[in-house]
Amino acid sequence: MKTIKEYSQLIDNALKDKQYGSYPKELYDPISYVMSLGGKRLRPLLVLMGNDLFGGDTEKAIHPAIAIELFHNFTLVHDDIMDKAPLRRNQSTVHKKWNENVAILSADAMMVKAYQELCKADFNFLPTLLDIFSDTALKVCEGQQLDMNYETQTKVSILNYLKMIELKTAVLLGGSLKIGAILGGASQTDSQTMYDFGKHVGIAFQLQDDILDVFGDSEKFGKQKGGDIISNKKTYLLLKALEMVEGNKYMKEELHLWINAPVFESSEKVEAVTNIYNFLNVRELANKEMEKQYAIGMSLLNSLHVADDKKKNIINFTDSLMVREV
Amino acid sequence: MKTIKEYSQLIDNALKDKQYGSYPKELYDPISYVMSLGGKRLRPLLVLMGNDLFGGDTEKAIHPAIAIELFHNFTLVHDDIMDKAPLRRNQSTVHKKWNENVAILSADAMMVKAYQELCKADFNFLPTLLDIFSDTALKVCEGQQLDMNYETQTKVSILNYLKMIELKTAVLLGGSLKIGAILGGASQTDSQTMYDFGKHVGIAFQLQDDILDVFGDSEKFGKQKGGDIISNKKTYLLLKALEMVEGNKYMKEELHLWINAPVFESSEKVEAVTNIYNFLNVRELANKEMEKQYAIGMSLLNSLHVADDKKKNIINFTDSLMVREV
Repeated sequence: MKTIKEYSQLIDNALKDKQYGSYPKELYDPISYVMSLGGKRLRPLLVLMGNDLFGGDTEKAIHPAIAIELFHNFTLVHDDIMDKAPLRRNQSTVHKKWNENVAILSADAMMVKAYQELCKADFNFLPTLLDIFSDTALKVCEGQQLDMNYETQTKVSILNYLKMIELKTAVLLGGSLKIGAILGGASQTDSQTMYDFGKHVGIAFQLQDDILDVFGDSEKFGKQKGGDIISNKKTYLLLKALEMVEGNKYMKEELHLWINAPVFESSEKVEAVTNIYNFLNVRELANKEMEKQYAIGMSLLNSLHVADDKKKNIINFTDSLMVREV
Repeated sequence: MKTIKEYSQLIDNALKDKQYGSYPKELYDPISYVMSLGGKRLRPLLVLMGNDLFGGDTEKAIHPAIAIELFHNFTLVHDDIMDKAPLRRNQSTVHKKWNENVAILSADAMMVKAYQELCKADFNFLPTLLDIFSDTALKVCEGQQLDMNYETQTKVSILNYLKMIELKTAVLLGGSLKIGAILGGASQTDSQTMYDFGKHVGIAFQLQDDILDVFGDSEKFGKQKGGDIISNKKTYLLLKALEMVEGNKYMKEELHLWINAPVFESSEKVEAVTNIYNFLNVRELANKEMEKQYAIGMSLLNSLHVADDKKKNIINFTDSLMVREV
């Protein structure tokens, strides 16, 4: 068993040495660029830790871990085009630094590279790994499409929202853990439990992101406070608030006024909508849902056929990602 | 050994029955739409015929054949966004019928579906098939990027052009044949020969397209005559002409005048540039290069360790795709 820091180091080293190709430059430079922007490397870490939990050989899990990181970054490049996002990790997005065509095509090449990396895994595991990988990849596409649909859809239920974040972000954490577990020799039951553990913890992480965007220490998290409020992003908080103001004519009018305002002072809108959230107590409700999802994840982890002391590493890791002191 | 018509029927049946997914509609409807637009199904046919040549079981090659067709259509959807093309096979392109985001994402899902389809192949062949598939896919991306680069690059050599069409279109024909051959039990040497055969024949087909666009019977081929001339597309003919007018001040001026004309009567431009092509005899030169590439392909086919009568089917097929009576 290695420490999280050692796993991080292994992933950073593997990524640092990686060559993606050289010609034509416009195809391969964006891949090196995106992969060098950093980030927490959460997904490859989960592959290695899932593998570790079942006593697998880290060396054999490193390529699938990199495959997942490549796939994740492929989705970011295409999502950024769709969202017209100018920045990613405080740097220009690929379609801004180059252009949209380069962003479409170089990310396509990244997806192929992801499969190539996955195919370096042990021959006997290949069909199973490919099956999980492709299945997860499709779910991520479904989640992204639902997210786009919800942008223009007036009513989105909390249930549909939870399903969307499950598909868009949580299943990839589940898939990462499952791939790691399988490479580590986990049984079918245990590897599926790992997937579900990752899925629920992933939903909790996304709910936390929703909460932190409004109530977090913006300096600490390096994001504009209330960015989701400003852009009317349909988060758990907004959807819950929209649901709750239905019975309150005055509050409903005020919330919709801010949502529909064509021009506004950002800080004023953030303050006003935050006040509505506070009045309705949606933060508590979101917290409750987040804790519930996290607890389901933890109980799944507990049910694994693995000695408890072996689980400490991954519990410490996921706990460290839950910021409860907001 | 089946007839080409029987193979076509098999592919059509496999595609007709195929379900790609249902929810969200915006992700899966475009896949069904694109896959139903038809086309020659050249690539899956080549998979089946490559397999046939080595006495393989057609049933086992059908999924990889569909995988290649899915991949090919994935590239068409993304290429159409990049080229801002409104029509594909006389129907609206996906980004026109839906929108660009839907086109990016649904094609991404198609690529994943292509890998899923490939993974239905026999377990023992999987690593080799995936290797060829991903390698070919990356080359196709490289070719598309070079094609885009050449659009704005003033000087493109004939050698670079041939390399570009090799990557963008010819290697996928080679890859299709190689995958079929491997599934049929071909040796490494023979399957590589099949790849090279497909590559050279594919280059010949593309050169033929360049020639037919200007000199073909436009009614017969259902395309606007001289479309490439109108859009200044850097085909073999234009690049050869640009090379040849270097020593002829008057002709150089005239050709560049038409290329740089901001406004023009289409039919006038087509006639004028065609006259230059005729004067320079570039059609003959393109024909010569096409015949050379085709002959290399045929000599490679001849060198296979396969009885000559078995080769008749594929020779008849590729011959039928070469239109020499223009």
